[in-house]
Amino acid sequence: MRPVAVIGIGKTHFGDFPDRNLRSLAVEAGQKALDDASLQPSQIEAFYLGNFAGPSFAGQNHLAPYIASALGITGVPATRYEAACASSGAAFFQAVTSVAAGVYDLVLVNGVEKMTSQPTPRVTEILAAAGDVAGEVRAGATFPALFAMIARRHMHEYGTTREQLASVAVKNHANGAKNPYAHMRKVITLEQALAGKPIADPLTVYDCSLVSDGAAAVVLAPLERSAEFTNKPVRILSVVQTSDHLALDEKPDITTLAAVRLAAEKAYRLAGVSAQDIQFAEVHDCFTIAEILALEDLGFVKKGEGGPYSQAGCTALHGPRPINASGGLKSKGHPVGATGVAQIFDLVQQIRGEAGDRQIVRNSLGLAQNLGGSGATCVVSILGAVA
Amino acid sequence: MRPVAVIGIGKTHFGDFPDRNLRSLAVEAGQKALDDASLQPSQIEAFYLGNFAGPSFAGQNHLAPYIASALGITGVPATRYEAACASSGAAFFQAVTSVAAGVYDLVLVNGVEKMTSQPTPRVTEILAAAGDVAGEVRAGATFPALFAMIARRHMHEYGTTREQLASVAVKNHANGAKNPYAHMRKVITLEQALAGKPIADPLTVYDCSLVSDGAAAVVLAPLERSAEFTNKPVRILSVVQTSDHLALDEKPDITTLAAVRLAAEKAYRLAGVSAQDIQFAEVHDCFTIAEILALEDLGFVKKGEGGPYSQAGCTALHGPRPINASGGLKSKGHPVGATGVAQIFDLVQQIRGEAGDRQIVRNSLGLAQNLGGSGATCVVSILGAVA
Repeated sequence: MRPVAVIGIGKTHFGDFPDRNLRSLAVEAGQKALDDASLQPSQIEAFYLGNFAGPSFAGQNHLAPYIASALGITGVPATRYEAACASSGAAFFQAVTSVAAGVYDLVLVNGVEKMTSQPTPRVTEILAAAGDVAGEVRAGATFPALFAMIARRHMHEYGTTREQLASVAVKNHANGAKNPYAHMRKVITLEQALAGKPIADPLTVYDCSLVSDGAAAVVLAPLERSAEFTNKPVRILSVVQTSDHLALDEKPDITTLAAVRLAAEKAYRLAGVSAQDIQFAEVHDCFTIAEILALEDLGFVKKGEGGPYSQAGCTALHGPRPINASGGLKSKGHPVGATGVAQIFDLVQQIRGEAGDRQIVRNSLGLAQNLGGSGATCVVSILGAVA
Repeated sequence: MRPVAVIGIGKTHFGDFPDRNLRSLAVEAGQKALDDASLQPSQIEAFYLGNFAGPSFAGQNHLAPYIASALGITGVPATRYEAACASSGAAFFQAVTSVAAGVYDLVLVNGVEKMTSQPTPRVTEILAAAGDVAGEVRAGATFPALFAMIARRHMHEYGTTREQLASVAVKNHANGAKNPYAHMRKVITLEQALAGKPIADPLTVYDCSLVSDGAAAVVLAPLERSAEFTNKPVRILSVVQTSDHLALDEKPDITTLAAVRLAAEKAYRLAGVSAQDIQFAEVHDCFTIAEILALEDLGFVKKGEGGPYSQAGCTALHGPRPINASGGLKSKGHPVGATGVAQIFDLVQQIRGEAGDRQIVRNSLGLAQNLGGSGATCVVSILGAVA
């Protein structure tokens, strides 16, 4: 396996865009990534699309060639990858693996979701299909309810508090306010977060990520060829995808996600680094409790210490280990099929030193964690500066 | 790239199964494939699922870990591949490529669709989303209508007749009647086919494939390791996936599918064979005209000669080049996400000499052609006996 680099990135704004369709979002991100890598569409050897529920949200299926052809990419393999909210993480994993194995040199990975054209109850129903429909969904569980159960159990086991959960939201809103691509650029206080409208107790509206439209894209190449296309390649040290049961009731302990632990362990091993070496991370904060679980399951802190660590400001933009400097899914937005690649976009911006007001200082080794459902899929990627 | 072999195959019956859900079908096929390869689930290093529209047909998304975990496969990458009716062809392509490149040794590829739980108008609508929804579908075109336009143009350009189209249906029904896995085991006459209820002129109900439930699975391994698992490995000489525009109106000529021609040319080159070397094939006869196009675009006959070639019996079970000895999508059934892998299952059965009443004699080099939509995706695979 040979080293792989990100040689181009592109992203749309995330938000609620009634005038934009799914394809125009994906094409904008893809074209920006091609431009960033100074590539023509005809140079792309394979097209990887992450998308969770285009047919349900937007009525269009067979999306990979639909988008690729609009970008001017035809002839080559063009496939849609679906792994719930880790759909574009899965596409990225497969793309990196193929370039690393020497199958292709130049590939484009795109992630897109257009969610806001459906009414909220239908959005909730479409998202719920990432869980076990015949089991937990039939019993009435939506994703906020599932993560509320995780939060409640984490509070019971480890003394995690609502203030600690809210501190994640406050921090991510503060970061997102500095991100021009973010869906919700609004600073909030701890008091506001705590007083949010209840969604699924103990989670309030401020504990939940956003329903967004958006797309992100990256171009990959073998590291050894990257200088042909860019003077700022970012190296991919490892990408690992793992899987687990869908239903929470099939997990022995719902305060820890086995797929995340496994992916992280393997990603560290393949990259030759430890959790403590990771300087910053984009983690999958679909709910505030999910960021706390991620801190623990990725090995940044011991199990049960995620809440106090967050509340103490350790994950703040200029804290010892910045988490979700982009604003995370909470503030940046969460167009689900775009999120995995958007996390890579954010890592690359930081490593290149192009993150503007939210630029962090220790920016040479970052991690992205993309979660599908309540942990049935996880993709962990480690990216670093080229020495 | 190293040679890859199919070391295990499994399939459910195809049909209308009100008592079976999507997962139980996929698990049955997957378990049979594991058993056929004498493998335990824990030996599988990656799980590839082809599924077109499980969320729309069956209400469940995030299907890959949902099915993998029910098979006892957790931890490893489990991803759903969607490329319309070529979804499991795309999964197979990616799986073979990964094993060939040395990423994995033992992988399971599964294809499934559960279609009959929806009423027919909704099935038509779900399938139409594999076409250009904002364009041709909004204008009223369903897939039967799109292929009817192709048929009409082919008749105009090349003199293809309704009798020639019907001869494809008669032959595929005759073959399917010998296939215990087939959805519709019914011999029909040319007169019956011609007198079928009109669906989209010139296509009658006998020109259209079936709406089916079903699943198929194959286990892959490096050829050099295949003897550890089976005494009847089948070698994969090449697999190629290609893409094109979705909409018919973006094709310069609708009587030929560029993605099929390109995939075939490349597959022959990689396998070191010519079209004339191919002894038998499973082609994507979603409509009778699609089989005629396939004969031409795969290079078995010149453009325009597919109709007469079929009518002359050249593609019959004991003709010079048997096509769809399984009965094809027309008679075997077409659970769309399962079809690509089911074609591989059928090639392997023939090459192993296990095809029972439909066994053909020259069975050492076969081709499968799996089509997505009206040609925006194509996967061509060439399989052969191990010398």
